[in-house]
Amino acid sequence: MGKNASAISPTRSEDYPGWYQQVIKVSDLSEPSVVRGCMVIRPYGYALWENIQKILDTRFKETGHENAYFPLFIPLSFLEKEAQHVEGFAKECAVVTHHRLAKDESGKLVPTSPLEEPLIVRPTSETIIGDSFSKWVKSYRDLPILINQWANVVRWEMRTRMFLRTTEFLWQEGHTAHETAQEARTEALKMLDVYEQFAKEALAIPVIKGEKTSSERFPGAVNTYSIEAMMQDGKALQAGTSHFLGQNFARSQNIKFMSRVGTEEYAWTSSWGVSTRLIGGLIMTHSDDDGLVLPPRVAPVHVVIIPIYKGDEDRSVVLEYCSSLARELRSRNYCGEAVKVKVDDSVANSGERNWNNIKRGVPVRVMVGARDIAASKVVVSLRSKETRDKIFMTREELVEKIGEVLSSVQEDLYQRALKYREDNTVEVSSLDEFRSYFASEKAGFAVCYAKDSATIQEKLDPYKVTPRCILPGDSKGKCIFTGEEGGVKTVFARSY
Amino acid sequence: MGKNASAISPTRSEDYPGWYQQVIKVSDLSEPSVVRGCMVIRPYGYALWENIQKILDTRFKETGHENAYFPLFIPLSFLEKEAQHVEGFAKECAVVTHHRLAKDESGKLVPTSPLEEPLIVRPTSETIIGDSFSKWVKSYRDLPILINQWANVVRWEMRTRMFLRTTEFLWQEGHTAHETAQEARTEALKMLDVYEQFAKEALAIPVIKGEKTSSERFPGAVNTYSIEAMMQDGKALQAGTSHFLGQNFARSQNIKFMSRVGTEEYAWTSSWGVSTRLIGGLIMTHSDDDGLVLPPRVAPVHVVIIPIYKGDEDRSVVLEYCSSLARELRSRNYCGEAVKVKVDDSVANSGERNWNNIKRGVPVRVMVGARDIAASKVVVSLRSKETRDKIFMTREELVEKIGEVLSSVQEDLYQRALKYREDNTVEVSSLDEFRSYFASEKAGFAVCYAKDSATIQEKLDPYKVTPRCILPGDSKGKCIFTGEEGGVKTVFARSY
Repeated sequence: MGKNASAISPTRSEDYPGWYQQVIKVSDLSEPSVVRGCMVIRPYGYALWENIQKILDTRFKETGHENAYFPLFIPLSFLEKEAQHVEGFAKECAVVTHHRLAKDESGKLVPTSPLEEPLIVRPTSETIIGDSFSKWVKSYRDLPILINQWANVVRWEMRTRMFLRTTEFLWQEGHTAHETAQEARTEALKMLDVYEQFAKEALAIPVIKGEKTSSERFPGAVNTYSIEAMMQDGKALQAGTSHFLGQNFARSQNIKFMSRVGTEEYAWTSSWGVSTRLIGGLIMTHSDDDGLVLPPRVAPVHVVIIPIYKGDEDRSVVLEYCSSLARELRSRNYCGEAVKVKVDDSVANSGERNWNNIKRGVPVRVMVGARDIAASKVVVSLRSKETRDKIFMTREELVEKIGEVLSSVQEDLYQRALKYREDNTVEVSSLDEFRSYFASEKAGFAVCYAKDSATIQEKLDPYKVTPRCILPGDSKGKCIFTGEEGGVKTVFARSY
Repeated sequence: MGKNASAISPTRSEDYPGWYQQVIKVSDLSEPSVVRGCMVIRPYGYALWENIQKILDTRFKETGHENAYFPLFIPLSFLEKEAQHVEGFAKECAVVTHHRLAKDESGKLVPTSPLEEPLIVRPTSETIIGDSFSKWVKSYRDLPILINQWANVVRWEMRTRMFLRTTEFLWQEGHTAHETAQEARTEALKMLDVYEQFAKEALAIPVIKGEKTSSERFPGAVNTYSIEAMMQDGKALQAGTSHFLGQNFARSQNIKFMSRVGTEEYAWTSSWGVSTRLIGGLIMTHSDDDGLVLPPRVAPVHVVIIPIYKGDEDRSVVLEYCSSLARELRSRNYCGEAVKVKVDDSVANSGERNWNNIKRGVPVRVMVGARDIAASKVVVSLRSKETRDKIFMTREELVEKIGEVLSSVQEDLYQRALKYREDNTVEVSSLDEFRSYFASEKAGFAVCYAKDSATIQEKLDPYKVTPRCILPGDSKGKCIFTGEEGGVKTVFARSY
């Protein structure tokens, strides 16, 4: 394998979307399925999702939420109760209309037994969960209700892309009900903070937190907040959203309670979610032309040990050494759990095994041959390094320092991604600057003052740019699009 | 609350099905939803399911299985490829036929954009997972493939009952592919053993393992094995199944591999599953006329501490004592995890709090009042005891022994259920005996020699009895229904 060899063809610079699909394929994360727009999440990809779930689930429980499960199907009449909500989802609904199959006259199997009312496969669960809330809440004493659901949802998207936008995807959706508007909004913002911290600490992805403009709001929400990440092509990825729903869904689902002063009031609700889309963001933040790069905190395997041997005799000595090294490494901790170690003796050729693990993004690779054993050393490579430098360590050093090594890899990935975003973010103060910045295909984020109004959209359309979020803070200035005062600091970018 | 008071009305003897619904309701496990046959799993019920999942998932991984995720939707043409399979599921399929909603001329929202091919919401995933297997398997070196999926499935049942039979339910489905028939059958039987051990050790439910008769076989299977549990009304509950699928699905999904001798062969597959139905079985095995009884191994809360106080001053002293007792108990382990303790100060009346926790089946209740604190003792009640005896212990004793107490409760529940089953199982050796046994509404299990043939069914119909499973072993005898030799030992019962 030459110095400039790359595991991935095309490379990022040759064809970024093609590179993305290839990284997923060679790392066995997922594959397309026969069902339009749906994917199969393969074991390696699902193990990554399980790690994401575990960390998030712990944080949700620490912040007082309980998991529950609500029906997959939503009656059409439920969706209709909130006018904006149904408008937002009507174009992408999978609709169940029959509950039986039977042969027609020509012997062909066709749907029979039509349902009285069509059922929608949930695109999100505000309405069906709201219906339960309406039964659970009688008095202010029953509030807040803090619920989370891990589930599959379906949105019939026209253009799909693995992990980023699929017809069916896996997610969590938090749904809460509160006594006051203030409490519901505080909850929405608190969970946005949980997402930000999670993205930073677990996924090593720096994100920008802010509020969505009115055109990008969740259908039925009063305010939508999001975290936005920058991919390596400069585009933004909305990585998580949190909504303050006001009393809109409480009204449509009749969630009422007796207040402290004896009046009947509608509850104030919030909802918030992240999905398997995070895996797409993870890939596009860290991976390189050699394939996947995974942050240790969520990697299914932390350390892969690759035995190198020639004959059978060599093999048994080297394998035994590798097994005992694996045991020793597993006895060490990283982030409160045992270090996850795999010995890879899967195929005959050790070079091929090394490449397989590079492509799968295993954070630390350890090569062990008979000569290394004799010299009491191991050859360590870190997947996070763009160079393919080898680090020579003694076995004891590796075991002693493995936790530190993993922590420093995690931190390096975060710092690199942060620097990338900073290097590719500009402040612009005029429409000309804005235009010339986005004239480039490789533009990143532009921050400027803008009015949150539909009228600016036409100036963005030629560049395929959208407002990603309004930054927190009170700073106001002249809108670069309309010249009006009172513009708010807004991040613009092309996006997924 | 008088000596004969009962939290549940009706009682088991008054109306068993009514009692079952009531136990679920008062313990907040689940509730009916607006969607026909679907239920809402409330936080307490979902916590129970999470505990079940966690233990099973560990056992699946220990036996070499990996989790993955496959599409919710199955193309109609896939289901059709296996003739028996589609025949078995055609009558209970939720069918997606459209992917959009729009207003018709009268302004009514209706499904539009029909799909070219209808999609079935998965009732089980042999066909769609088989399609992936066909891509993953090239050579015998790629085998075995050992996959598990945690998912929701939909079967449009006519009569539904919470947990036992719902339109949508949660389950795990294992799917494996092997080089030989022997290996695939061994896998199916191994996972049946895993289910049996899990039922015994985690759920404290004794089960009978055996093979289903041909009439009760999974559509498309060569052999179906099951675990059968006895409920307190004597009926059987099929609590888990494992199938040897031969090459039926490999043929329909084209799962082929190059064998060791260079020939192209179809793989041999198995599948196996348990579902939220286990929670129904758990309820009907252990609960009593006071409500739910939970085995500690899967209980969301092990110990509830109920503070008893009069005035505000009393309250703060007692609550502080309870918090410190809770901390101490949480520092102890049960089955390798911290003891789960809750201090219940939810409502004013301590008697009401006590009843709430009885109804929710918390294994150990600890009452603490000011006088108990002064006397350095605690008053302990075990939910597993039919009597409401109180046990007086010192605080130190309770903390010291809590692990043992929980273990003995778990064991007691198992032994009680086992005794119940043994007391309600008979061996019968003639059709007359069989008839007189099942003349009673309260009959349990009858074991006898029988031929596995459709002809015996008519003799069972008047009693609403079905063969539950054929017991393992080579013992043969005269069929009590047909008089033919070569009958196999079969368990008969009414069932859920």
